[in-house]
Amino acid sequence: MNEFYQKDIISIKDFDKENLEKIFAATDKIMNLAPSERREICKGKTLGYLFYEPSTRTRLSFDSAMASIGGNSLGISDVSSSSTQKGESLADTIRIMSIYSDALVLRHTLDGSSRFASEVSEKPVINAGSGTEEHPTQAIQDLFTIKKEKKKIDGLKIGIVGDLKYGRTVYSLLYGLGNYDVDVRLISPESLKIRSDSVYEIKKRLDYTESTNLEEHIDELDVLYVTRIQKERFPDEEEYLKLKGSYVVGLDLLKQMKSDSIILHPLPRIDEISPDVDKTQNAKYFEQAEYGKHVRAALLGLILNENGF
Amino acid sequence: MNEFYQKDIISIKDFDKENLEKIFAATDKIMNLAPSERREICKGKTLGYLFYEPSTRTRLSFDSAMASIGGNSLGISDVSSSSTQKGESLADTIRIMSIYSDALVLRHTLDGSSRFASEVSEKPVINAGSGTEEHPTQAIQDLFTIKKEKKKIDGLKIGIVGDLKYGRTVYSLLYGLGNYDVDVRLISPESLKIRSDSVYEIKKRLDYTESTNLEEHIDELDVLYVTRIQKERFPDEEEYLKLKGSYVVGLDLLKQMKSDSIILHPLPRIDEISPDVDKTQNAKYFEQAEYGKHVRAALLGLILNENGF
Amino acid sequence: MNEFYQKDIISIKDFDKENLEKIFAATDKIMNLAPSERREICKGKTLGYLFYEPSTRTRLSFDSAMASIGGNSLGISDVSSSSTQKGESLADTIRIMSIYSDALVLRHTLDGSSRFASEVSEKPVINAGSGTEEHPTQAIQDLFTIKKEKKKIDGLKIGIVGDLKYGRTVYSLLYGLGNYDVDVRLISPESLKIRSDSVYEIKKRLDYTESTNLEEHIDELDVLYVTRIQKERFPDEEEYLKLKGSYVVGLDLLKQMKSDSIILHPLPRIDEISPDVDKTQNAKYFEQAEYGKHVRAALLGLILNENGF
Repeated sequence: MNEFYQKDIISIKDFDKENLEKIFAATDKIMNLAPSERREICKGKTLGYLFYEPSTRTRLSFDSAMASIGGNSLGISDVSSSSTQKGESLADTIRIMSIYSDALVLRHTLDGSSRFASEVSEKPVINAGSGTEEHPTQAIQDLFTIKKEKKKIDGLKIGIVGDLKYGRTVYSLLYGLGNYDVDVRLISPESLKIRSDSVYEIKKRLDYTESTNLEEHIDELDVLYVTRIQKERFPDEEEYLKLKGSYVVGLDLLKQMKSDSIILHPLPRIDEISPDVDKTQNAKYFEQAEYGKHVRAALLGLILNENGF
Repeated sequence: MNEFYQKDIISIKDFDKENLEKIFAATDKIMNLAPSERREICKGKTLGYLFYEPSTRTRLSFDSAMASIGGNSLGISDVSSSSTQKGESLADTIRIMSIYSDALVLRHTLDGSSRFASEVSEKPVINAGSGTEEHPTQAIQDLFTIKKEKKKIDGLKIGIVGDLKYGRTVYSLLYGLGNYDVDVRLISPESLKIRSDSVYEIKKRLDYTESTNLEEHIDELDVLYVTRIQKERFPDEEEYLKLKGSYVVGLDLLKQMKSDSIILHPLPRIDEISPDVDKTQNAKYFEQAEYGKHVRAALLGLILNENGF
Repeated sequence: MNEFYQKDIISIKDFDKENLEKIFAATDKIMNLAPSERREICKGKTLGYLFYEPSTRTRLSFDSAMASIGGNSLGISDVSSSSTQKGESLADTIRIMSIYSDALVLRHTLDGSSRFASEVSEKPVINAGSGTEEHPTQAIQDLFTIKKEKKKIDGLKIGIVGDLKYGRTVYSLLYGLGNYDVDVRLISPESLKIRSDSVYEIKKRLDYTESTNLEEHIDELDVLYVTRIQKERFPDEEEYLKLKGSYVVGLDLLKQMKSDSIILHPLPRIDEISPDVDKTQNAKYFEQAEYGKHVRAALLGLILNENGF
């Protein structure tokens, strides 16, 4: 029996290096299969999704992943505007969706929502983003991309730039990187530094240095992970406008970087990366999106098949 | 040829006991098939849905039912907010949807809408709720649940509690129960009793007693069917708040019931049934939801296969 | 290799008569296949859709077409109200959707949007309506319907009536008809005549006469193509109300037409065609909708299979 069979994917903190490497191997296997072989993996299986916070991109990534392995998807892409919200509890909604599907994908604003869901659901639950810290499948996708493009994760110098306070992607990535021996540089404006209440948890797992200056160590980085400065997180638009241009990655900056460094971004981007970077060999964010589809397909294949695939 | 082939499912009044028992047998058969066998039943067939009144739950029940038997679904989950509403007639919308699919599921606010739809559609029409009285697949699901959990329907004492005035589920269930020899108790506040204009139709089919007191005959019931008091049906919020707590089913009440009695609910519930009832052996509302999926799969399988399955 | 393999469908102007006839032949072939054979054509392939302008009907036509040939669909049916709109560029959205799918269907308000999309997409792009002129699959559907119902296109007298100014369907149809030797009559109120800036392009392709009087040449027409006068295009409701009844096709008018003439309409209709026309042998607009599904299935089959089907 494979260790992920019928398992929930709640937090990236639940994964050690060995777990991650197994998922990476399964992802590689998926990518090497012929489409017709892939479609046997979850043939006729159904993925149910419940998005309490809309995220078209993550939903489509799961949907296309499930389609690629022969399954189908159904669910509610915006629970708050759906008729489900007639005062029904999350527990009941989860229970019903778990009747309609073989595995459940949940996105929710609250920390702990997926953990709770996994307790009431008869079917495995996959956290597609919850609260302020957790987006485990995004973190696995990011780690897989680094591994795939740099051939290793250990020993790399990794810069993470942008809004480090509000983006849960960053926290999940940091917890995931904690399984590897990496040198992490966090670059952000003072007001968008890692939240102080998460520092302890992160420091338990890895060392990092902080800076407000993107150019400072740019020539040493193997990986530059760029994040969007999300307008909707700012109470004040003026503050947003002042900050959003601070860390734009363009060709000028790229010239200062190692020639084999890679640029990642969880997407969507606004203007943090200039479009003329897209065609360089360093730009790997679209590959990252594609790997995300295969990582999710691999996870679903492992969760839904007793003996793997 | 099976008698349901290419037939419309418009009203529960069109079904006699023999029809119902055939659907129950088909549902049992579906439940006993291996998933790969099930998926042959409607392989490659398409279900079209048109929801003029949103109902995520019913839509997902049909969608997952169709997926379980190998088919797929497409349609409009909220016609009122869709571009279809550029002044197009219901007849035209139905005709077009019947081109895109092998069978049509319709939910509509108006009585008679499904009957009308079946007249203009080239494909069989399934009523997924119309007007004030009809929700035939819910009624079949409810009857199947009773049969499955109590091994019979004839001879049972069945209490139906809550908002009996506005919930079409109750009317469909009563018409369906009219095929059996049952003893029905209707329990509701005075202001939420069965509508007087439906009394004649119901009395033609079965006898019932009415009461405002849930505890009165609680110890005699084999089945307690609980319904939600729907806030959106009340012109006055104060009136709603006064009534909604009147018929809460909790462990205290359950203790007064027969040990092998069952509690049903069409879901979603708000607080009519206390969550601590969920884990008792009497709670069968989640089973009821699951049976609903299989009942719908059975109906679709019968409607779309000349020789049944 | 078939000439449409991995090709974009951007403008009806890109199609010559030979291209069109090949698509018609492929459509005929699709219609003659058994459902189980059809479903092999795009088995396991995924169609991605992006609708920046909602159009339930066109989306469902593509969705059902893809289902009929064994593929599945995913995407965003209303981009403007989706979370994708966090300031992401069209180019990025297209690139991501092209990762999730084997071909892309795009509807967009802007002229040139599909051409642009095809340049950034790794997968073939199909224009499902853009700007003021282009809706190539609708035009192919219309031409196929005429061919199918009249056995030919060359030599026919074709009247197009209604709102000729704002409906892009009309422009696409005219450009498509430019490949044939047809006699075209354009009938509209003065204020809704063909836009002057398109006249040159149309006249390069075909000759037409203009009139405000529908009855004038009605007895000569082989095909009457009726279009809706779209309320949402009028700045002034009074102007709309004055005009919308001007060209209603009823049984009276039909009596003046050749007995083997056909009435087409891209649908949805409001009251441009009286419902009592529906049952006459001249009414072919529901057939037209059905052909549209098969035309789209044929196009997808050609685009996604190197050696056709």
